[in-house]
Amino acid sequence: MTKYKKKINSAIIIIGNEVLSGRTQEANVSFISNWLNKNCGINVEEVRIIPDIEKKIIFNVLDLSKKFNYVFTTGGIGPTHDDITSLSVSKAFKAKYEYHSEAYKILEKYYGAKNFNEGRKKMAKMPRGVSLIHNPSSAAPGFKIKNIFCLPGVPLILKSMINNLKKYLVKGEVTSSITFNLRTVESYIAFDLEKLQKNYLKKVEIGSYPFFRLGKVGVSIVMRSQNKKQLKSCEEKFSQIIKKRKIKRFKNN
Amino acid sequence: MTKYKKKINSAIIIIGNEVLSGRTQEANVSFISNWLNKNCGINVEEVRIIPDIEKKIIFNVLDLSKKFNYVFTTGGIGPTHDDITSLSVSKAFKAKYEYHSEAYKILEKYYGAKNFNEGRKKMAKMPRGVSLIHNPSSAAPGFKIKNIFCLPGVPLILKSMINNLKKYLVKGEVTSSITFNLRTVESYIAFDLEKLQKNYLKKVEIGSYPFFRLGKVGVSIVMRSQNKKQLKSCEEKFSQIIKKRKIKRFKNN
Repeated sequence: MTKYKKKINSAIIIIGNEVLSGRTQEANVSFISNWLNKNCGINVEEVRIIPDIEKKIIFNVLDLSKKFNYVFTTGGIGPTHDDITSLSVSKAFKAKYEYHSEAYKILEKYYGAKNFNEGRKKMAKMPRGVSLIHNPSSAAPGFKIKNIFCLPGVPLILKSMINNLKKYLVKGEVTSSITFNLRTVESYIAFDLEKLQKNYLKKVEIGSYPFFRLGKVGVSIVMRSQNKKQLKSCEEKFSQIIKKRKIKRFKNN
Repeated sequence: MTKYKKKINSAIIIIGNEVLSGRTQEANVSFISNWLNKNCGINVEEVRIIPDIEKKIIFNVLDLSKKFNYVFTTGGIGPTHDDITSLSVSKAFKAKYEYHSEAYKILEKYYGAKNFNEGRKKMAKMPRGVSLIHNPSSAAPGFKIKNIFCLPGVPLILKSMINNLKKYLVKGEVTSSITFNLRTVESYIAFDLEKLQKNYLKKVEIGSYPFFRLGKVGVSIVMRSQNKKQLKSCEEKFSQIIKKRKIKRFKNN
């Protein structure tokens, strides 16, 4: 992985009617985003959840491909009729949709020549010219075409594959974060926070998130920055503020 | 709520850096989507998760407002500096950003005149001309402007408010669904499913979702339709197929 100084951004496209209908709780965004930041210094700046409809996949892949350094798709690369990501991405980039010889061999070996039926063969069909992303758990590879990475939707399989993305990614600066879990309400500290944010504008991003936990009300203040010195300085300033305002922190913080 | 025969579609915009960064697991999409379908016959056809950045909020609100019958936003209507949804939506529709007199009264009563500080007052600032969505749990109302509904991001508060959307929504046909949880793998039934889907094209949407549960591998086949007769017929056809293929169902199905 090459080290690259500038900020690197990305988007995720979750392809799947089951997430849109509410049947399935979305489970990949948080994992991918944390992995990308921690391991590659890449920020996720937009997520779209879209249905299994060819023209929508084509539109969103092309649209986000232009707007972000990288785009990660999940879902729709399995063996069934509703798995149309590979075909749609082929059409998006006007690349021939055909058997990838290495993927074909991997799948044939995994299932055995006798059991290598049409559905299984379909998982070897990809846009011409892709690079494979190997899958150690269920064989069917993902693939990279231009700045798009097509990954499976099943969280366990995705997790087993994600380290195989590293070799294709240029590394950015990791964003560090500090969290204060406070025994207060947002509206009590809003004014101080606004002033603090103005002092660290474009250096530290300060977020405020109310929560209810085990019957207790609290606020998480999250500071994020690619500059550790600025982050430390902002943390110290905020520590002084909460001391002055006599705000207590939760014990597990 | 008026009954309306045609399909009614919608989109959700999740506004929040904490979801994009992976710190917070997204938790509202599944709830809103299920509620909309069950109570209003409204389908969610796209979700976008975007950061707390004004120009991105404006772009996405306007873009999805044109593409869908309704748009639901969550997040960014609280008292802190990073809550910029109301101001951004005002700018999107070129509506004045000002105190809503009813919202102001509700919040002043809730906090008491003495404790009604700037942060708390901010929650009464909205685009001119909105309709309020009342909040029984923490007072600060959401609002409706044109076909956009701005709701809070905290799941507990959102859930307490959602029934107050009903009066603003035109009702569509509810989508019913049937699920088969099967002891098989997708690639074993892919061919049969494809044939079945072709026979019910545009009548029943058939999805196939592999899962790993308590160490067991399985596939959920989900059939969804606004036409109950067609759904029943598709269910019967598929029951014959799994009988013929000797595929067992999980006991809890």
